[in-house]
Amino acid sequence: MNASNGLGDFEETSNVGIKSFFDSSPPLKDAAEIKKKTEEFMQKNSFSEKTRRIVLVTSGGTTVPLEQRCVRYIDNFSSGHRGATSAEYFLRAGYAVVFLYREGTYQPFCRSLPNNPLLECLEVTKESNITVRPPYDQTVKKAISNSHVAISCGTLLKLSFTTIFEYLQNLQLIASSMSSLGSRALFYLAAAVSDFYVPWESMAVHKIQSSSGPLDMRLAQVPKMLLVLRRDWAPKAFCISFKLETDKEILLKKAGAALEKYNMNMVIANELLTRKEEVIVVTKAGNIVVQRDRTRADADVEEPLINLIVDEHSAACKSLE
Amino acid sequence: MNASNGLGDFEETSNVGIKSFFDSSPPLKDAAEIKKKTEEFMQKNSFSEKTRRIVLVTSGGTTVPLEQRCVRYIDNFSSGHRGATSAEYFLRAGYAVVFLYREGTYQPFCRSLPNNPLLECLEVTKESNITVRPPYDQTVKKAISNSHVAISCGTLLKLSFTTIFEYLQNLQLIASSMSSLGSRALFYLAAAVSDFYVPWESMAVHKIQSSSGPLDMRLAQVPKMLLVLRRDWAPKAFCISFKLETDKEILLKKAGAALEKYNMNMVIANELLTRKEEVIVVTKAGNIVVQRDRTRADADVEEPLINLIVDEHSAACKSLE
Repeated sequence: MNASNGLGDFEETSNVGIKSFFDSSPPLKDAAEIKKKTEEFMQKNSFSEKTRRIVLVTSGGTTVPLEQRCVRYIDNFSSGHRGATSAEYFLRAGYAVVFLYREGTYQPFCRSLPNNPLLECLEVTKESNITVRPPYDQTVKKAISNSHVAISCGTLLKLSFTTIFEYLQNLQLIASSMSSLGSRALFYLAAAVSDFYVPWESMAVHKIQSSSGPLDMRLAQVPKMLLVLRRDWAPKAFCISFKLETDKEILLKKAGAALEKYNMNMVIANELLTRKEEVIVVTKAGNIVVQRDRTRADADVEEPLINLIVDEHSAACKSLE
Repeated sequence: MNASNGLGDFEETSNVGIKSFFDSSPPLKDAAEIKKKTEEFMQKNSFSEKTRRIVLVTSGGTTVPLEQRCVRYIDNFSSGHRGATSAEYFLRAGYAVVFLYREGTYQPFCRSLPNNPLLECLEVTKESNITVRPPYDQTVKKAISNSHVAISCGTLLKLSFTTIFEYLQNLQLIASSMSSLGSRALFYLAAAVSDFYVPWESMAVHKIQSSSGPLDMRLAQVPKMLLVLRRDWAPKAFCISFKLETDKEILLKKAGAALEKYNMNMVIANELLTRKEEVIVVTKAGNIVVQRDRTRADADVEEPLINLIVDEHSAACKSLE
């Protein structure tokens, strides 16, 4: 192949970027244990249940450390509400769910609780029993029991990350465990992943000093991991990525470009201000607007969205049989 | 006064910087309600209890938004463990505590619980009652009841912030409510406050695009609010600020400089890696090393630290009587 061919160059650059990203990342803590847990989960859910589909839901934002002994970091805003809610609907649809979430963000079944449910929802009685304050009684009990049931049945595996390094290392590890699933694997990549980072070796070792004048920073682009995910890690899987923008015009253009460039099955386009009311599902066959049912106060946009995805994933699995 | 006088220039610049910081900040949400709550709290604890001392404990890190419709921000690492723990000891020493904390960080009485106590510590029984899993039984019950008691007795007021704008606006508002307390007021400023920020008016309105090349950012210095706190907002209060560094040599130099420059009563010097074992209390009379009691596994450094502070604050109150 001609080395000056545009695509060749692009792929070449991208491979080099990804290799150097992983080579220079600080090693993932507990990698062996995460690998073991993930493989046991895949084994249980794919070998014993031949038709069960498995989804990786990523959720919350990644941090980008600015110092090796990290005091400061850049963060991407994401409460993890979409990921946590979607995980619930995937479980309800019979999927086994790997929930890769940012430490401290929303958990499945807990989205309608206050920020600090322990102190805001619970009370200790004179007899030293714990009770739930109204109006949270049912919500709190359901949250606890649904979470425990999903985990103890072995259909929900929760893994957490904080930095961009941990997120991408986990993604690679989980994707490689899922590669044997073929088309039964679904990637639902709702995490808000940083586009920019400071390579570990060029990072300040100590805290950046504030003594004099403004701070100038140069951040490098994070290599486009979706390209490798699709091409090398999960060529047969159903892959869904997300775009969040504050400007609607930019949003649809970028979602369409991502669909093409990374060969996704769907790109979910979110506008920051309206993302809880509607999303646009961008596919090769056209765009589908998905809205929450506005006749029900407690309806969310994830319910119709996951229904649509489950149908499309089923169709894709059948067409590959 | 000669305009070229060094100190004059410095104060002039600092006043201008602070005025322009507040003028250009997005308005604080619920400012009127926060003011009302704070003033009621001061009234209750200072007028009805003439000798009660009141402390403002700030805790957790501030964020610096990089975009007006915020997707990305810079954050300062801080779990809020020190602030939350210190608040407990101040309550125990008879202080009324205003706890100004970063949303999502540690709360007083909850520091020995897992990250997600609701799901990790609680269970729903077959009879639909809530019980606590061992070994958390006593810890969880104590956390809930101690928190509720402090709040319902009116000795603990909790207020939260996320951005550097919200933090400094809250600080100004609370300090002005505390100004009538004179020497009975204590400021214990343990929050990790950003040194750099992006002024609101020069901030990108929409999400910064990642399409081409590296990202260059220029951050401005946050004006030194300690100077105004000491000089204008709380001239008679006992003021304690914190320094956290990863390099010990820089640490003591900077702590000493801060003591002088901002006329603090104490600066607590923390080294990132050893901060749970010991801190150095830098005062005009010399440095005091405070260590946790290593003969007790559950002993913390905050217990002797707060004991020392309470003594010093008592002495300072007496000397001003």
